[in-house]
Amino acid sequence: MAEISLAKARTMIRKTLEAGRAQEMKPLAVAVLDAGGHVIAFERSDGAPPGRFELARAKAYGAVMLGMGGTAQRDRAEAQAYFMIAANGIYGGQLAPVPGGILVRDKRGRVVGAVGVTGDTSENDLAVGIAGIEAAGFAAEG
Amino acid sequence: MAEISLAKARTMIRKTLEAGRAQEMKPLAVAVLDAGGHVIAFERSDGAPPGRFELARAKAYGAVMLGMGGTAQRDRAEAQAYFMIAANGIYGGQLAPVPGGILVRDKRGRVVGAVGVTGDTSENDLAVGIAGIEAAGFAAEG
Amino acid sequence: MAEISLAKARTMIRKTLEAGRAQEMKPLAVAVLDAGGHVIAFERSDGAPPGRFELARAKAYGAVMLGMGGTAQRDRAEAQAYFMIAANGIYGGQLAPVPGGILVRDKRGRVVGAVGVTGDTSENDLAVGIAGIEAAGFAAEG
Amino acid sequence: MAEISLAKARTMIRKTLEAGRAQEMKPLAVAVLDAGGHVIAFERSDGAPPGRFELARAKAYGAVMLGMGGTAQRDRAEAQAYFMIAANGIYGGQLAPVPGGILVRDKRGRVVGAVGVTGDTSENDLAVGIAGIEAAGFAAEG
Repeated sequence: MAEISLAKARTMIRKTLEAGRAQEMKPLAVAVLDAGGHVIAFERSDGAPPGRFELARAKAYGAVMLGMGGTAQRDRAEAQAYFMIAANGIYGGQLAPVPGGILVRDKRGRVVGAVGVTGDTSENDLAVGIAGIEAAGFAAEG
Repeated sequence: MAEISLAKARTMIRKTLEAGRAQEMKPLAVAVLDAGGHVIAFERSDGAPPGRFELARAKAYGAVMLGMGGTAQRDRAEAQAYFMIAANGIYGGQLAPVPGGILVRDKRGRVVGAVGVTGDTSENDLAVGIAGIEAAGFAAEG
Repeated sequence: MAEISLAKARTMIRKTLEAGRAQEMKPLAVAVLDAGGHVIAFERSDGAPPGRFELARAKAYGAVMLGMGGTAQRDRAEAQAYFMIAANGIYGGQLAPVPGGILVRDKRGRVVGAVGVTGDTSENDLAVGIAGIEAAGFAAEG
Repeated sequence: MAEISLAKARTMIRKTLEAGRAQEMKPLAVAVLDAGGHVIAFERSDGAPPGRFELARAKAYGAVMLGMGGTAQRDRAEAQAYFMIAANGIYGGQLAPVPGGILVRDKRGRVVGAVGVTGDTSENDLAVGIAGIEAAGFAAEG
């Protein structure tokens, strides 16, 4: 499997933060997780609220654990709220079923990790996270 | 950053409790947290139920962690309940998304902490908490 | 039972902090709990580390829950470490078996709560905590 | 207070990782936390075990919460094991009382955060962490 190296994770984070600044979004935080849901790298922009790590990781963690991007999780939550509440319990309260949790796939389509972006609207978080993932040469599923 | 000193925290608590008594509200409890969500000071009025610390802290803690006052949290919870349920899991079950959790900003607009007030209706809790924050020379965002 | 009123709790905290400053101790934090182990009041001095609430409360909470001051808890821990480790599990990890957790008794000898002091050496924490409790007209058992 | 900006946190991490590579240490992971114990940035080197984030954060978190570097925590743990076991419960099981958790102080001596380094021996982790902190213009207390 083509894993996400630290160098690639850095690229994802930098390009995501750059895209956010270019669009004058609020200060963002970005987490990059591996295929086991473990943190490779994280950065919180100056001026963001203190607890952004937990939220960014949860967005990415839920994507890896459920094999679903945040948009699909949100749709499921809106259709069947009790399922996502139950899933949240199953995964230790560490899910955030909204856009901004993004699966990262390699060229063969396999999931190699996930990115979690938080700080602006969920849709904006998603858009810049996709830009960051693609800038590092991977495919994004939000 | 202008931090909240213990002297300022005492002023916030006293003025909040005084405002509550002046308006014949139920016995209040007030927590003051710093910009990292850690308790600076807390007081529970005689006659209040025993577990008020946890509730007052949760109101303030959620404000700091999410960078949103309790009113904005409540609005988000009403629009998208599953998000606030998920956020509660992410932050260790320590959120209380109702009015009475109030961000404290310094003169430059930066968040320096939060106040949590509980005991009467959420709207009344909010009103006296704002009075306490302003009496100490800070700006309140409920 | 003569409960600890908020006014009495304030006196305990102020007198404890004053005694610490008079003896040039490090910045202290003081929690006052009721007979059920619930927080009545807490203050953290400027310059103390952020997580002092948890430590001060644990000192007082263990005293109330076990009916033993911190000195007796420490002696038990040194004689039988596994017992205090087990007790810590039983009470949710919220004990701190060292001096500075002090039972508060009324004139009839009944436990009405506890004070937890932290910031300097355990022995110094204990000494000023006793001073604060006695200044409020109660008896202290450290 | 001179906060640790994201730019400064990046410098600390890069210089720590560079120092580890220069000395042919095992793959390192480095977390930088703010004065409230919240994550600013984290990086895990390629080849490090997956759960390094939790360990690096715990080293830094304990330093901030207790106001003690990892070396002082280890000394306390060796002198009074039950105290550090209790402290671990009080702070949610999130302490790692060994060298490699390092307080970061500004020019005025105030704690502005902490760095946690893990991957090689505790003493080596500490040495390169200090190098990283000093390269960013802060003082280190290990």
